[in-house]
Amino acid sequence: MNHVLTPAQAAAWSSYQRMRVRLAERLNRELSRETGLSEADFEILVALIDAPDDTVRALALRCGLEWEKSRLSHQLRRMEKRGLVRREVCAEDNRSTVIRVTDAGRRLAEEAKRQHEQAVLAVVCDALTPEQVQALGCIADAVLSRLDEPPRS
Amino acid sequence: MNHVLTPAQAAAWSSYQRMRVRLAERLNRELSRETGLSEADFEILVALIDAPDDTVRALALRCGLEWEKSRLSHQLRRMEKRGLVRREVCAEDNRSTVIRVTDAGRRLAEEAKRQHEQAVLAVVCDALTPEQVQALGCIADAVLSRLDEPPRS
Repeated sequence: MNHVLTPAQAAAWSSYQRMRVRLAERLNRELSRETGLSEADFEILVALIDAPDDTVRALALRCGLEWEKSRLSHQLRRMEKRGLVRREVCAEDNRSTVIRVTDAGRRLAEEAKRQHEQAVLAVVCDALTPEQVQALGCIADAVLSRLDEPPRS
Repeated sequence: MNHVLTPAQAAAWSSYQRMRVRLAERLNRELSRETGLSEADFEILVALIDAPDDTVRALALRCGLEWEKSRLSHQLRRMEKRGLVRREVCAEDNRSTVIRVTDAGRRLAEEAKRQHEQAVLAVVCDALTPEQVQALGCIADAVLSRLDEPPRS
């Protein structure tokens, strides 16, 4: 097979892929152990507590998270049963659904955010120099800009 | 809420998280469009074609990928139906299962690897300077080393 990437590019990519998988596993495991929340619970609660008035229309939540409708509905039903969110009919148009975070959901989300930041500090930021932390942000922003360009075909 | 991360750390982490999600989506979408393979198919085929004698005992495959047994069994059954892999009884101990990649599976895996490398080149390596590519590898290696340390409690 002809290689497309140079050995240096392939090595960097391989390290990135391993970091990506193992870091997500570690952070999700610690989140679950400390708060009982899954990654999906956490994403939704954070979207809600960062939203104005603590509510997000179900559609906006879906678009922000880029989830499929059925997956989100299923997830929200389970979170409602656990008392983390409530689904309500939108007062404005009386048809669409808004999702509201409960007090218990808000407390747990704030605890989880704090715990998550501590884990990121311990396994990422404290493992890197300040220059490397800054470089990681610049690298990510450059890749995000590239992803925003229309694909060349 | 008291913030654990400095603003610079939080900004870098936020960029990394967005890159991680959007990059995986783009690469998986292109893989699927170009080869019809899911990320899971691709991971397994690559593990197989990189293995000595093109076979991996099911258990070793599971450990290498860190998947649960039921998820792997289900995935392998579907790949077997599509003619990408064969499950055989291990000749050595006559009890355990080995997974062998088929000729069709090998051809598709090699095509997918080439396609994947081209996508990584286009959206990651070509979006970065050579110094940034190297920095990404060093950053990932530093985080991986930290993840290998026993957790401090």
